[in-house]
Amino acid sequence: MFRCALTSLALLGSAIGFTVDSRRTSNGSLSYKDPSITPKERAQDLLERMTWAEKVTQLGGIRRAVSRTNGKPVFNETSFNAIRKTQNGKLGLGLQFNHVNDVLPIVNDLRAQQVDESRLGIPYITIADSVNDIWISGGTLFPGTVSMSSSWNLPLFEQVVAVIREENLAIGVQWVLSPEVDLAKDPRNGRNGEMYGEDAYLVGEFATKYIQTMQEKDENGWVKVATTIKHWVYGTGSGGVNRASMQGGINHILNDLAPPYVKAIREAKPLALMASHSSVDRIPLSINKYLLQTVLRGILGFKGLIMSDANAIEYLTTESKVASSRSGAALKALRAGLEHELHPGGNGLFTELIYQANETDIVALVDTSVLALLEIKFTTGSFDRPLPTLEQANRTLRSKEHLDVNRNITRESIVLLKNDGILPLRRSEVGSIAVIGPYADIFNAGMYAACNATDPAYGASFRRSLEREIGTEKVHAAAAAQEAGFAVVMLGSGFGTFNPATFNNERTDGEGYAHVDLGFPGQQQQLLDAVLNTGVPTILVLSSGQTFLLGKSTQPSGAILHSWLSGEFTGDALVEILFGETNPSGKLTVTVPQANGAFPVAYDYLPSDDVGGFGSATLYDWHWPQLTRYSPLRFGFGLSYTTFAFGEAEAHSSAATKSHNATSVIVTTSLTNTGGRAGKEVVQLYYRPKFSVIEFPVMKLIRFTKIELGACESTDVRFEVPKSELGYFVNGEWHVDDGGYSFWIGNSSRKEDLELVEVTI
Amino acid sequence: MFRCALTSLALLGSAIGFTVDSRRTSNGSLSYKDPSITPKERAQDLLERMTWAEKVTQLGGIRRAVSRTNGKPVFNETSFNAIRKTQNGKLGLGLQFNHVNDVLPIVNDLRAQQVDESRLGIPYITIADSVNDIWISGGTLFPGTVSMSSSWNLPLFEQVVAVIREENLAIGVQWVLSPEVDLAKDPRNGRNGEMYGEDAYLVGEFATKYIQTMQEKDENGWVKVATTIKHWVYGTGSGGVNRASMQGGINHILNDLAPPYVKAIREAKPLALMASHSSVDRIPLSINKYLLQTVLRGILGFKGLIMSDANAIEYLTTESKVASSRSGAALKALRAGLEHELHPGGNGLFTELIYQANETDIVALVDTSVLALLEIKFTTGSFDRPLPTLEQANRTLRSKEHLDVNRNITRESIVLLKNDGILPLRRSEVGSIAVIGPYADIFNAGMYAACNATDPAYGASFRRSLEREIGTEKVHAAAAAQEAGFAVVMLGSGFGTFNPATFNNERTDGEGYAHVDLGFPGQQQQLLDAVLNTGVPTILVLSSGQTFLLGKSTQPSGAILHSWLSGEFTGDALVEILFGETNPSGKLTVTVPQANGAFPVAYDYLPSDDVGGFGSATLYDWHWPQLTRYSPLRFGFGLSYTTFAFGEAEAHSSAATKSHNATSVIVTTSLTNTGGRAGKEVVQLYYRPKFSVIEFPVMKLIRFTKIELGACESTDVRFEVPKSELGYFVNGEWHVDDGGYSFWIGNSSRKEDLELVEVTI
Repeated sequence: MFRCALTSLALLGSAIGFTVDSRRTSNGSLSYKDPSITPKERAQDLLERMTWAEKVTQLGGIRRAVSRTNGKPVFNETSFNAIRKTQNGKLGLGLQFNHVNDVLPIVNDLRAQQVDESRLGIPYITIADSVNDIWISGGTLFPGTVSMSSSWNLPLFEQVVAVIREENLAIGVQWVLSPEVDLAKDPRNGRNGEMYGEDAYLVGEFATKYIQTMQEKDENGWVKVATTIKHWVYGTGSGGVNRASMQGGINHILNDLAPPYVKAIREAKPLALMASHSSVDRIPLSINKYLLQTVLRGILGFKGLIMSDANAIEYLTTESKVASSRSGAALKALRAGLEHELHPGGNGLFTELIYQANETDIVALVDTSVLALLEIKFTTGSFDRPLPTLEQANRTLRSKEHLDVNRNITRESIVLLKNDGILPLRRSEVGSIAVIGPYADIFNAGMYAACNATDPAYGASFRRSLEREIGTEKVHAAAAAQEAGFAVVMLGSGFGTFNPATFNNERTDGEGYAHVDLGFPGQQQQLLDAVLNTGVPTILVLSSGQTFLLGKSTQPSGAILHSWLSGEFTGDALVEILFGETNPSGKLTVTVPQANGAFPVAYDYLPSDDVGGFGSATLYDWHWPQLTRYSPLRFGFGLSYTTFAFGEAEAHSSAATKSHNATSVIVTTSLTNTGGRAGKEVVQLYYRPKFSVIEFPVMKLIRFTKIELGACESTDVRFEVPKSELGYFVNGEWHVDDGGYSFWIGNSSRKEDLELVEVTI
Repeated sequence: MFRCALTSLALLGSAIGFTVDSRRTSNGSLSYKDPSITPKERAQDLLERMTWAEKVTQLGGIRRAVSRTNGKPVFNETSFNAIRKTQNGKLGLGLQFNHVNDVLPIVNDLRAQQVDESRLGIPYITIADSVNDIWISGGTLFPGTVSMSSSWNLPLFEQVVAVIREENLAIGVQWVLSPEVDLAKDPRNGRNGEMYGEDAYLVGEFATKYIQTMQEKDENGWVKVATTIKHWVYGTGSGGVNRASMQGGINHILNDLAPPYVKAIREAKPLALMASHSSVDRIPLSINKYLLQTVLRGILGFKGLIMSDANAIEYLTTESKVASSRSGAALKALRAGLEHELHPGGNGLFTELIYQANETDIVALVDTSVLALLEIKFTTGSFDRPLPTLEQANRTLRSKEHLDVNRNITRESIVLLKNDGILPLRRSEVGSIAVIGPYADIFNAGMYAACNATDPAYGASFRRSLEREIGTEKVHAAAAAQEAGFAVVMLGSGFGTFNPATFNNERTDGEGYAHVDLGFPGQQQQLLDAVLNTGVPTILVLSSGQTFLLGKSTQPSGAILHSWLSGEFTGDALVEILFGETNPSGKLTVTVPQANGAFPVAYDYLPSDDVGGFGSATLYDWHWPQLTRYSPLRFGFGLSYTTFAFGEAEAHSSAATKSHNATSVIVTTSLTNTGGRAGKEVVQLYYRPKFSVIEFPVMKLIRFTKIELGACESTDVRFEVPKSELGYFVNGEWHVDDGGYSFWIGNSSRKEDLELVEVTI
């Protein structure tokens, strides 16, 4: 264990000390220590004081401070100091299963030591993955990204991000490696659970909300937590494999993949961006000057710091083999536009730049890169904020308010895919329930959650939640299905935090794992078959970041729910839904394929990709047989315990006026809750121009809103879309068509759930 | 029926007449009727004499002269004449199931009528698909394209193409819609059987041979048959669907898809090219000026005529919706670079250009387009050749020499994928054989063959061939497997020429059909299971243009043969192989996937697409689980009844000398037939630079040769590759790396079948 001679308290004093005492240099010029001048000015001033070696050390950092052995946190001082000598720009907390009470004292000492021992007092900035919680045990554990996007509830998501932000701040994390705006277009990709879904507009809305909320400024004008939008740019790698190559041309990239970046960069200004691991058109993003400079900096106007993905610079020479040495890889990456290296262990490749002090272009690029990092540090107050105390952290983490927000989003994250009337259960009619399937006992939080699924102290599995609700004696195991007279089967796939020591041997989902088969892993289908064959009424519950084939073999289930990746209240929320205490309101953000080879299956394919069109194709059309492109479990779909009816839709275009400075399209309808109980509905607006200059998808989401209505309540719905938003990029130029447009409004992307209105603009 | 007042004989005289009498115009200037001046000069002269309307009619033609009803040819004069008025550039024969004896007299009359009735005596040029035979019944029917490429025997393939050429010439077909150089990269694509396989080098070799042979010049200097290289540019459409969109950037297109074009354009000069139906990067090829002009004309230097694919210009407004009207679509296509329209029925869209006589740019583009077509007509002697006679046609078609070539290529087109020792059968040990499975009785020639699979007069199904060989009484049906003590199960998929009247309802492969499941269609797997469960020794024979999953469920078969798409002697060749009269020598030209969602699976993936690499991956690597990218049934693999051994390989680079005007790499080894019987082996050379500027595949085929050796015979093998061939395109510029290269030599692309040699250049 690392022991630091200085206590946190002493360091805290010293940290505050220098911000107060050192506003000016001796000659009276501006000083980087002066918080009253701009972050840019401070960064520039500091840069000018730094030696070449000091600059190069800022280009990397330490990703994993505290590891874990035999269930206990371990800090290796020797290896830490070895890395720190050449890479000290940032600090990562280490393995996420360590508890805040163990980690914070160690990390605080490390932070203080760095300020104290560095010539110019330059602190680390603490950086962490932050997907469904803080990157350390002890915080509020939300459900996974795909779960939260299934809520389609942006105001609620904003509350979630505010919680994660406050919990990050409470442990001194000033920079997160989120949001991930990759599109879940290929059901084989093991990382789909980390994504907001298949639709670029929806992803852009969630990501922009994430960045705006995370980067909110505090009373000092400091950004609370900097964000990293990623991975520029990724849609589907070859074979659905995460790091594999893509073929994309500029129209594909700008129209299919870039919209979340366009929106986030314009409206939320993420302070950093991570380049993807993939090659696009055979050029790895880490050396893809065209996509980093011409497109990202030029066309999209990104101004923040560009960092590498983990090990990406090394992979240039070890995997894609586009550089013949480590130093060659570093030079190519720097010259292409990478400014900071994420390198989880050992020596990063940017440390090789130390030997380039006499290369003018490299010196200039290193200056730019260091400046970008220093500006984030100053912008987030990393030079100025006191170190967090454990006491304050424990007051903030898992507060009642935080847990309430978590319960709320969890309730809306579960999607009801099928219900033949079996749900909700009437408590009076349900005696015992047989709970069957491995995922009833697994806390399936995903790979980027600070949670060990086998730790019973944390979160509730579905079985535990149900036992709490109806009593242990009424929850039966598999053999008792017939006897219980009622079964819940919970199947899925997961990142095997089930057994952290050997997690790479057991997992069936998550980063690095692609699904060549979309059936249930292992013997789960046989288990389901056995239960369904008993004829006992059965509810199928899915748990995973992925979609599964839900065909003939699952059809006899009376109801199907997808709970995606669990938060700590997913078990409870499932029980609430089973018994009707919560009315499900989640909607699919990824389309469920109908056959193993039927992908891409996302709803927004190009018209020439499926000439059969909406459900009218025959075998002689140019497509997959049996209409498999048109999935009934389609983007935007999800059932409720109540019913909703739309009024007649209307669309008109409004010319620019004094109050509207642009031509817009206004689509209106009304929504009525025609069922017997309160519920929430997601109203969705899709469109396409009738004719376009280059191919345009058969339809694209352009607006959505989630509305709560009591039984028999009604409300007007009105969407306004500026004409300028209806365009698309043609070879890098934004183009908006004049003429006819089709708009569809309804509660899913399925034709049968939509009303078509046409308008000429 | 159409009745023409003129007889073929009279027309023949008149056709010859004008070539002799009209060499000069009255003022003595050059005349298009003069065969002694160049085709270009003749075309230019003729163009200058043509009216606007005459020009526009040359931009299209009639695709389907003679149709078929109730098993009889039908000619509809009214509809023919309606189309002919506005489109008379070319003539197609019609439905391929009609017999030459019925079709040739009708078509000859039509050809004569056109010359006779047109003001300037401009003939049609007769055009036809020509994949595994002429586009009419009565010719020699070869196996499908994927079958013939599986021979890896270029000299033999040259003989095949010469046969098809002579048979085309004998019926007056001067222009074929082949070769297809699309790459069979996605096992879901229903057109893979029409392709030469997954590897761009192999495809380029076959396509270049096809074009060189087909376009051979006759004694008059006329090209015998013009070719159409197609479809520029196609690899894998979204979802494996044939006409669907692609995302490709320029490096993907030039390095992965274009190599067959590069080679064919440089070495064989195809007179025409067909643009693909697909959108690339959202821009349909029919209006993709960048790919048609900048890349195809500019970078690749293509000089021939560019034609549309069938209906492609219409689809611009009806499907991809990038043009709002038929005339708009025509203008966009013409302006992008299309010069001729393929429009199977009714009015083509280029007929709309008749209204553009006053648009200077359109007039110039139409002139260029007409000139391109006229030049093909003059180059191929279409103005000068006499009409073919039925007598001559019948002497040429299906001559003994032609049938012998067919038997030879068919024997080498079948790939032995597995053999546990059951093959070859010893006649003395085989009593009866149970022949089981639908494809034992189907003549599965593919969609572009002039063959009706239900017509017993044509070609032999496997069952018929076997009955001929061992006697009807020894060939048993399914129920008798146990009794026979030996079974051959023949499974597959096909284009349902099985029932031509309703072929679109029964087919399971072919154009327009994509496979979301790579298992056997229908109940075939259950049939195989039933036979294998009897424990009777079983040989599995596959028949289809596609690959199937060959996993656990097919493993109990003692041997597996893939016969691909049948030619008329496929049944016979299978029987020869079963009894060891022919030693199998075919090799896979497409890799067989190991799981339903495991694609792309082609051997030449990029290094970053499967970081696990050659067989060393674990579950934590970035790939599909269970090493499914590395298929044991891999490109280049195929078994023999004998065994071959390679000597030690050597590689060295030779500097440019007087006899070598370029630096080359020379790889040598020896090959010995170490088994007990004569056989043929395909020696394959693969390579990659150790480091490259942009990503380069893990290996690429660069040379191959097929060698026949008697038992115990040995031979030296030597490949020489100029350094200039080892490069690749970087953003349109050819680049060759200096430094280290890896070469692999062996008899498949599987690591275990290859020897690595390294060389520095």
